[in-house]
Amino acid sequence: MADSLNCDLKSLSPLQLFEKVTEQGEKVRALKAGKAPKDEIDAAVRMLLSLKLSYKTTTGQDYQAGLPPKDHVLINNGTTKEEDEDLVDPWNVQTSNAKGVDYDKLIVRFGSTKIDTDLINRIERATGQKPHRFLRRGIFFSHRDMDQILHAYENKKPFYLYTGRGPSSQAMHVGHLIPFLFTKWLQEAFDVPLVIQLTDDEKYLWKDMTTEKAYEYAKENARDIIACGFDVNKTFIFSDLDYLGSSTGFYKNIIKVQKHVTFNQVKGIFGFTDSDCIGKISFPAIQAAPSFSSSFPQIFNGKENIQCLIPCAIDQDPYFRMTRDVAPRIGYPKPALLHSVFFPALQGAQTKMSASDVNSSVFLNDTPKQIKTKINKHAFSGGRDTIEEHRKYGGNCDVDVSFMYLTFFLEDDDKLEQLKQAYTSGELLTGELKKVLIETLQPLIAAHQERRKQVTDEVVKQFMTPRKLAFEF
Amino acid sequence: MADSLNCDLKSLSPLQLFEKVTEQGEKVRALKAGKAPKDEIDAAVRMLLSLKLSYKTTTGQDYQAGLPPKDHVLINNGTTKEEDEDLVDPWNVQTSNAKGVDYDKLIVRFGSTKIDTDLINRIERATGQKPHRFLRRGIFFSHRDMDQILHAYENKKPFYLYTGRGPSSQAMHVGHLIPFLFTKWLQEAFDVPLVIQLTDDEKYLWKDMTTEKAYEYAKENARDIIACGFDVNKTFIFSDLDYLGSSTGFYKNIIKVQKHVTFNQVKGIFGFTDSDCIGKISFPAIQAAPSFSSSFPQIFNGKENIQCLIPCAIDQDPYFRMTRDVAPRIGYPKPALLHSVFFPALQGAQTKMSASDVNSSVFLNDTPKQIKTKINKHAFSGGRDTIEEHRKYGGNCDVDVSFMYLTFFLEDDDKLEQLKQAYTSGELLTGELKKVLIETLQPLIAAHQERRKQVTDEVVKQFMTPRKLAFEF
Repeated sequence: MADSLNCDLKSLSPLQLFEKVTEQGEKVRALKAGKAPKDEIDAAVRMLLSLKLSYKTTTGQDYQAGLPPKDHVLINNGTTKEEDEDLVDPWNVQTSNAKGVDYDKLIVRFGSTKIDTDLINRIERATGQKPHRFLRRGIFFSHRDMDQILHAYENKKPFYLYTGRGPSSQAMHVGHLIPFLFTKWLQEAFDVPLVIQLTDDEKYLWKDMTTEKAYEYAKENARDIIACGFDVNKTFIFSDLDYLGSSTGFYKNIIKVQKHVTFNQVKGIFGFTDSDCIGKISFPAIQAAPSFSSSFPQIFNGKENIQCLIPCAIDQDPYFRMTRDVAPRIGYPKPALLHSVFFPALQGAQTKMSASDVNSSVFLNDTPKQIKTKINKHAFSGGRDTIEEHRKYGGNCDVDVSFMYLTFFLEDDDKLEQLKQAYTSGELLTGELKKVLIETLQPLIAAHQERRKQVTDEVVKQFMTPRKLAFEF
Repeated sequence: MADSLNCDLKSLSPLQLFEKVTEQGEKVRALKAGKAPKDEIDAAVRMLLSLKLSYKTTTGQDYQAGLPPKDHVLINNGTTKEEDEDLVDPWNVQTSNAKGVDYDKLIVRFGSTKIDTDLINRIERATGQKPHRFLRRGIFFSHRDMDQILHAYENKKPFYLYTGRGPSSQAMHVGHLIPFLFTKWLQEAFDVPLVIQLTDDEKYLWKDMTTEKAYEYAKENARDIIACGFDVNKTFIFSDLDYLGSSTGFYKNIIKVQKHVTFNQVKGIFGFTDSDCIGKISFPAIQAAPSFSSSFPQIFNGKENIQCLIPCAIDQDPYFRMTRDVAPRIGYPKPALLHSVFFPALQGAQTKMSASDVNSSVFLNDTPKQIKTKINKHAFSGGRDTIEEHRKYGGNCDVDVSFMYLTFFLEDDDKLEQLKQAYTSGELLTGELKKVLIETLQPLIAAHQERRKQVTDEVVKQFMTPRKLAFEF
């Protein structure tokens, strides 16, 4: 059943080659330790050297044991993370720095590309739209192949957007809106179709939750997502538990990915162990498959080569590194990516938010009073201990959560800059800054709640029904 | 993510308990080797003793390292197989004995139960039918919980039949018919619904084959299966690639199984390794799920507790041992099983048949002339080297493949017994015995081919469309 070594090495991805070299190295060591016949050891060593050469030809790097090729860095099983590095994977985000994760380092470790001014200007030229504040302020800070998407778009070639959410609870907080607010902007700016995956199956696998409950959360979350203002004619929202059983294309792509990813690979990428259930082990393919347009035959008319752009928080990148590794081997284009920073908890930027702790953020169903109380009580302040000190030395915007939240939600660039200067100089007190945030979030959330009320069961059903969208492919 | 040890041990299956003891034993050894603090070692040892006690209480056996509980024997990774034992798993059947696999030993190793005269008589009483020749002749020789099925049936409780086939090629041989011929008899005798799974996804994962080709083979194989004479109103045939994308119930059961089976478990049961793709690793859940009636809401009206009876060759038992281990933990009844012996290759009973070697058996599309030539040329003979010796010492029916084939296909018990006596006594020559087989198979296959011609694309489509069957649940 195992692949033989005489398969065509040129067809292997850098990560597969890396694994082949590693395996062969282990084999040589085992032969030597077992005092195998000399000719057998020699043959194994020759194979090892030949594999190392193929690796170098393919990656442009020398093979180094324990150091996988760039673009395929093993990140979350702890074994390759250095002591002072942040831990970032789909289930954990940990940093010891109050400013949050060091994103420049993460770009290097993940092998992605920084979103620079040139790229933002190009997006502006291509769409004729002022770039979204998340782009202007570096909240979406990293990408893979966004230049390709733009090149295709400039040449009138279509693409589609894919984003998603794991419906772990009924309540969503403002941080959960980040990918959706940005995706909505992208969809309008580029006028492209959008698919939104709700991974209720993932939540069933990882949490102590029934499939029924996970599906119920998916539908509740869909309501909040729809309330962001997506156009029903251009957007398909799906629950995995539901859509897997109603699409001819989705399962076929899942199993194609599953055929081309080994346990060794998901162990390296996601840190799975032998004690993990086989559902978790095979799940990454389910998050990968919507990156391929043939997973949605009803939308793309069966076309297999429409490129996909995925806006997501950077902790989801491991799924899509795997997807990009597999794509060419199953005849599909690699999805492009836009990565966002993490949204900080009210208590500070050291950890990712938790939907299970109601005080860790402002929730979409909070009352104006709850919003006010939470921010006043829990928002970590970068201000000084006394008013006198604050007036004299000023506050620290880099660690102040109220200011961070304002960078996400206050649209006016000038006002944000004024607040920053006033807070840093000590002119503006913590209580005053919090007041600005409260007055920014209260109307935003009230408006969201108002729109959410309009989202009837019928509307949710419309969005979640597999159907043709208002595009021709 | 890992289960904690303080979970309720009573809810664990014997196999899970076995693994917990093994893990804890390793932990103790590691602590001792690492010269951990004494109180830490003591605590780990106490936990180990407590786990061993739970194991003994649950299984009635003392824990023995490397010896999993009965009903969960690890069989095919080679590590627990003794030197002289037959190798039997879903991908390999190997024996060094010309008579074929030792089935009595297999019953002991697999922990199943022999089908004895009492059970056959009870089936006859319950159905009012003469038992099928496969029962009369020990071709279906082993079972799990068939007594429960009969008890339920005698008390007017419904059950359903589930069998299947991996469509690895277009052509099926007579050996492939065994489970279908017997299942057809069971269906008619008990008047119950039947589902037939075609694992085209499995073939895609294991072979160098596209999904399109695997699905094409599935439809071709369905044609041969339908030609066995199944009633379209009582039978649903499905391709995984197709049905997974068109059923609300199937995927939900697959993921339930996948949540309750670890990589450690499939490694033990199926011999998977870290180099296997995640598709293979999670596939066993796809063969397990049709054992649960809620995988077919259209047939069972959403009912989750209809018991399932699976007639299959014994090499498929590992899948269903796993299924039976999981069933109570996800709230479903365990499927019952009826196991058949293997159908021998023309060349002898040492190996399982291969659909890729046209001379290894009689195929369903062979002409009368091909049948005659194959049997005369390839059927391994238990006769003597010369006519004189044969007349004097007689032939050996235990290793004669023509005689074995006749036990499968000659309906008349008396005639079979006469042939056996005449061959054993030397009165009947090898050529004459082969002639009887040729004259038995030629009309059977001609009739099959005739019925197959009647199976139009439209008929295949009918059988493969998810729909209500002619039963009320």
